[in-house]
Amino acid sequence: MMNPKNNKTGCLIVVSGPSGTGKSTIVNSVLDTCKELSFSVSATTRPQREGETEGVDYYFVTKEQFQQMIDNNELLEHAEYVGNFYGTPRKAVLDKIDNGLNILLDIEVQGAEQIKRQYPEAVTMFVVPPSWEELERRLINRGTDSMEKIQARLKQAKSEIEKIENYDYIIVNDVLETAISEVISIIATQDYKYDKRINDLTEAYSL
Amino acid sequence: MMNPKNNKTGCLIVVSGPSGTGKSTIVNSVLDTCKELSFSVSATTRPQREGETEGVDYYFVTKEQFQQMIDNNELLEHAEYVGNFYGTPRKAVLDKIDNGLNILLDIEVQGAEQIKRQYPEAVTMFVVPPSWEELERRLINRGTDSMEKIQARLKQAKSEIEKIENYDYIIVNDVLETAISEVISIIATQDYKYDKRINDLTEAYSL
Repeated sequence: MMNPKNNKTGCLIVVSGPSGTGKSTIVNSVLDTCKELSFSVSATTRPQREGETEGVDYYFVTKEQFQQMIDNNELLEHAEYVGNFYGTPRKAVLDKIDNGLNILLDIEVQGAEQIKRQYPEAVTMFVVPPSWEELERRLINRGTDSMEKIQARLKQAKSEIEKIENYDYIIVNDVLETAISEVISIIATQDYKYDKRINDLTEAYSL
Repeated sequence: MMNPKNNKTGCLIVVSGPSGTGKSTIVNSVLDTCKELSFSVSATTRPQREGETEGVDYYFVTKEQFQQMIDNNELLEHAEYVGNFYGTPRKAVLDKIDNGLNILLDIEVQGAEQIKRQYPEAVTMFVVPPSWEELERRLINRGTDSMEKIQARLKQAKSEIEKIENYDYIIVNDVLETAISEVISIIATQDYKYDKRINDLTEAYSL
């Protein structure tokens, strides 16, 4: 059988949802399990948090550097979120997809919308806690932000949840392990789709 | 939370493919694992094989009874296959879907096409062995049919495989356990889709 990577494009998988839903925890665990999955590291102007690594969690850049990336059309999507900027480097993502790799993006809701407009074939998941009360509780208990920032996040979360209908899948993050395994299943099944598998069969069946 | 079964419709899942691909073995194993999944028992005019149970594997009917079912519009799809007729009772399937149950159909390629035309939202999978040579081998080694029947099945298989592009997913039945787990994942992820989950969240988020 020929190398299928030469014949098919990879899948762009987007995990999004309001802040405080646990989407980054889910994404990190999925990446630990699915070694063949590529992760796109975002650029951001927000301050580095404790435990975060440059080039692994984010590329931490200044506002000036970020503006330069926008001006040079180096970002596939970018968005402002509670005063900070976030963006996905374009070339890294497109090169991997062209080489048949599946890529996972962990991005804010605004950015996910831009991706879906540009790539309707992107598979998008929206992560939410089981209820609004639970989301409030998680944002308040996070403890890394001032009350003012929490209020801003709550307000933003409310408007973001109204965008849920634009997503292909909903992941209810109640039991973390369940949420993780659901995301893994959704990613796995993308490779079983007709478009992904037909190339491998063309030769075997003289189609 | 309200009973979600009242708010959403079930999913119609179709497993098809040429004879000799092992699709019934896969389907039976999937049904053993997924207890919440309903199976639609087909009607057929073909003779009962050893080990098959009336009303479990098939409803075994005469050609006259089958024709009556067609005339009464009691079949969702029906097809002739190597001299025998096969059909899916309409009411049983539609009632279950309306009650929010996911239903699995194990049907011939002709029937699967009729289903997809009537229900574009049906999720369809095409099961194939890893190569044409392997399919030939399996049909010849089955041992339940005459050489003439085997030739007819091979000819039919060839024309059926040309319909593969109409399917949502391809299951390559090389290692049986892998094929089974892929089908289970595909079925599971249907319930994570936006349409299936949004009803449960509408109240929790006052959407």
